[in-house]
Amino acid sequence: MDKATNIVIVGGMAAGPKTAARARRCDSHARITVIEQGQTVSEGSCGLPYFVGGQIESEAALLIRGPKYFKEVMDIDIVNGTRAVAIDRTAKELEVLDLNTNTTSKIPYDKLVIATGATPAVPRGLKGHDLKGVFTLTKLADANAILSEMTATSPKRAVVVGAGLIGIETAEAFRERGLEVSVVEALPTVFPALLDAEMASQVEKELTEKGVDLRVGQRVMSLEGDDKGHVRQVLTEKGPIDADIVLLALGARPNVELAKQAGLTIGATGGIAVNACMQTDDPDIYAGGDCVENVHRVTGEKILAPMGSTANKHGRIIGTNVTGGCDTFPGVLGTAVVKVFDVNASRVGLGESQAIAAGYDVITAIAPGSEHASYYPGAQMITAKMVVDRATGKVLGGQVVGKGEVAKRADVLVTTISLGGTVEDVANLDLAYSPPFNGAMDVLHNAANVIRNKMSGMAKSISPVKVNERICCGEEFVLLDVRSNPEWEDAHIEASQCRLMPLNKLRAEVNALPKDAEIVTMCRTSIRAYQAQRILNGEGFENVCFMDGSITAWPYAVVCKHK
Amino acid sequence: MDKATNIVIVGGMAAGPKTAARARRCDSHARITVIEQGQTVSEGSCGLPYFVGGQIESEAALLIRGPKYFKEVMDIDIVNGTRAVAIDRTAKELEVLDLNTNTTSKIPYDKLVIATGATPAVPRGLKGHDLKGVFTLTKLADANAILSEMTATSPKRAVVVGAGLIGIETAEAFRERGLEVSVVEALPTVFPALLDAEMASQVEKELTEKGVDLRVGQRVMSLEGDDKGHVRQVLTEKGPIDADIVLLALGARPNVELAKQAGLTIGATGGIAVNACMQTDDPDIYAGGDCVENVHRVTGEKILAPMGSTANKHGRIIGTNVTGGCDTFPGVLGTAVVKVFDVNASRVGLGESQAIAAGYDVITAIAPGSEHASYYPGAQMITAKMVVDRATGKVLGGQVVGKGEVAKRADVLVTTISLGGTVEDVANLDLAYSPPFNGAMDVLHNAANVIRNKMSGMAKSISPVKVNERICCGEEFVLLDVRSNPEWEDAHIEASQCRLMPLNKLRAEVNALPKDAEIVTMCRTSIRAYQAQRILNGEGFENVCFMDGSITAWPYAVVCKHK
Repeated sequence: MDKATNIVIVGGMAAGPKTAARARRCDSHARITVIEQGQTVSEGSCGLPYFVGGQIESEAALLIRGPKYFKEVMDIDIVNGTRAVAIDRTAKELEVLDLNTNTTSKIPYDKLVIATGATPAVPRGLKGHDLKGVFTLTKLADANAILSEMTATSPKRAVVVGAGLIGIETAEAFRERGLEVSVVEALPTVFPALLDAEMASQVEKELTEKGVDLRVGQRVMSLEGDDKGHVRQVLTEKGPIDADIVLLALGARPNVELAKQAGLTIGATGGIAVNACMQTDDPDIYAGGDCVENVHRVTGEKILAPMGSTANKHGRIIGTNVTGGCDTFPGVLGTAVVKVFDVNASRVGLGESQAIAAGYDVITAIAPGSEHASYYPGAQMITAKMVVDRATGKVLGGQVVGKGEVAKRADVLVTTISLGGTVEDVANLDLAYSPPFNGAMDVLHNAANVIRNKMSGMAKSISPVKVNERICCGEEFVLLDVRSNPEWEDAHIEASQCRLMPLNKLRAEVNALPKDAEIVTMCRTSIRAYQAQRILNGEGFENVCFMDGSITAWPYAVVCKHK
Repeated sequence: MDKATNIVIVGGMAAGPKTAARARRCDSHARITVIEQGQTVSEGSCGLPYFVGGQIESEAALLIRGPKYFKEVMDIDIVNGTRAVAIDRTAKELEVLDLNTNTTSKIPYDKLVIATGATPAVPRGLKGHDLKGVFTLTKLADANAILSEMTATSPKRAVVVGAGLIGIETAEAFRERGLEVSVVEALPTVFPALLDAEMASQVEKELTEKGVDLRVGQRVMSLEGDDKGHVRQVLTEKGPIDADIVLLALGARPNVELAKQAGLTIGATGGIAVNACMQTDDPDIYAGGDCVENVHRVTGEKILAPMGSTANKHGRIIGTNVTGGCDTFPGVLGTAVVKVFDVNASRVGLGESQAIAAGYDVITAIAPGSEHASYYPGAQMITAKMVVDRATGKVLGGQVVGKGEVAKRADVLVTTISLGGTVEDVANLDLAYSPPFNGAMDVLHNAANVIRNKMSGMAKSISPVKVNERICCGEEFVLLDVRSNPEWEDAHIEASQCRLMPLNKLRAEVNALPKDAEIVTMCRTSIRAYQAQRILNGEGFENVCFMDGSITAWPYAVVCKHK
């Protein structure tokens, strides 16, 4: 008589195997089976762009654990090449289709786990999406298909459609392989779901510098092929782009058909609805990974957040719960970090417009600064943007972009937001300091203090975007650049409103400025610009503010000595 | 009639200038004067070991802002070469001595700020401490003296007394300059105030590999000189060490004489006592930086925490408060991070024994892991130790050491502890993940989950230190190494109790183990060892635990194929 719990898991990529492994550690005697339609298990799918780019040389590196390991070490049965086709919730049976033999069978379960992942979104109406040479990239098989294509046809021109994480990472991979690369994005910036415009602009500069032909704000109309049915052109609303290979990177849709057919609730986001225990509305059916919707920890709203890190957390919780334990998932912050050639970009919590849309009275700061002590060799600049609720001082979100270290700052913000911290909390964090690792004040300290200065009324700022609008409208104001002469000569903003007055001359020359003028101060990082604002306030100038992030966060063209 | 507030600040290194700058931004009309006995201001003193080592080439890099800048930009008077000698609290006057003219004068103040820093601790009774060639290192002048000595005498052998931050950083600097270097430390490990023994051992290995002659557990008895009064030997209780140049790095003592003479309270730590507003018991006298004592945010106890990062936070708060504002400092976590050649080490909050001494029922985990996705190029190992209060699950402290990234993990722990977070909070943090930056599970996730497994009774562990004790006592138990054959051949623990049984054979060969045996499992990082513990539990073995941190955290000798 077998009284062992019978745990059946659908999906062998991330949440599935993690569920299985955790369940085994919690319950030595359970029968644990993982059903996977593909031929592999536990793919390191986040590494795929680096496999395409050649930084990861062997696919074995992305397949750390195979079915043999799962069986020998964990007594877990991995059933590859088998698709789950239906759930009989009354009989508690899973109907599966053996893709080799094309026969179906039924597997009984006590606890069923749906970890079916997501599928790349390909607009059905997009003409040419099924041409040869057109790919998506979410599985090792996709990567191998792309690599085979590159070997077979030696493409020269790649077009990536969609400037999200996979799109941009793969654009870099194509450049690493020596291809000309265009990236087409319908929205006006790269990483439109991740970065506010002034932060995205730093990534855009890097892409352009590294030779990527960036075409934002252009919708793709169709893919055009040659007479052999191979893609040759991407047609956008602004014209054609030649293409020998195309990656469609338009996001992913949760695979919910199995759950839907079983009558389980699908949320408005399109993901399977689960409670904090990762349980569907059937108490014996759990779901996790890319196929479910998550709670956003700031807004409490349901969102899709397909991330390997989240899938692993889901898996641990489900593994606990299907073996009689009790664990809950508090939700996500939509955290992301990405390397784009030599620039790193990260995002946590709510973006500025997202926070405004969620009803917050938002206050922000853009603080550029050195990743570590500026006098210690190799210091690179980073820019931190923080989004805060004015009413409570609570941090709602943040973005950090630059050639220096950004993931640390993102993770500090993750921790702050998760624990309900305020700007005051951030300002006084005893963060780890020594010259190779940080400055005495971290950029997050500075960003928090800028916001505190704004909240107290001491600091007044205007965003680069607004400054640009006012320049374009020909409004009358003084854009007072307080950097040094050499800095100005190196690069400055060309506008009739712009005027140089180095900070160390400001007190002496202040009378040259009309007392009733509206003045916007600027420098490289905002630090001198804020200092200048305070000097001018002290000299009786009432209508002064500084440009947030100054020229570092200026997303538009500058007059530049070089090139 | 001058109604401007008269703010006088004693000390021009870190907290002093920061106070002055913040005060100016808060109050355009205040008179602000900084009294500094040295000839410089705002030294980047944390960079001094790198200036000695040559990574920082010019002293100008460490002197970013001079008196001219302070005057021109901030209308702050820096008075160099002038020592504050007494405070007349009734008359509200500071008596100062001009070190050039040797004349005294009095400066009236409305608000006085004491930022007198600290002085290297040199035991008065230490014979030979005043020989030529013996240095301390806390000021640029010290660094220049060391560099002059190296130019003049071309020393071959350096001895560093004290294995704290400055001692070890300067030992590396001497190695960078090509010297033979010995480090003598009275306590049994390097960084005795920062790292628990098993974490310190990883730093010790690196120092030894990089050619540093490490002599821990040896007290220095005297310094011996030649007939020209130049140091030639450091005599420890275990014998002499030849020395051409000696650095005394025995910590620092707060400079409190001025405060003491004025009748202000000096705390039991030896630092000036201040409240959360950084105010001494005289409401018109504030103090900050290395001369004051801080509150430890975990224990609430007063501690000394001389750090440039803390001094800057103090300065901002004092600058606010002396200009009529109100800001408070929540205290410190004793955070530190340090580069030791290719190894990085960090510490936050309470160490294990410190937490036990503070009365906590402590539970810990040692989690080695890859700094980022192991399949992404360049991944280095790091080891995270977490110290948690069993009663509440609150994180009390942590240490992260390794060749990979450690500062990020330290800062996540800083944020967690500052906001009262628990292991459960850490386990579910939505930390930034992509292969170049992290694994799907961060080492902190793993450490937190190990502790949760221990709290639930699923995981049972023993520390490497205890395993070694039991080996040394010849106790009967099985130390079951579940790594692979090649890993065992590469390096293993030599003990009669030690036995190899690779994890993938364990289920098949489990009957070869005596059922009633006491078994300690081990592997490389503990992950397989924990898996083995659970397999053995499932097979009916009751008396099983795994070695925390396994061979990565084993601070003793191993039988090693190489060398």
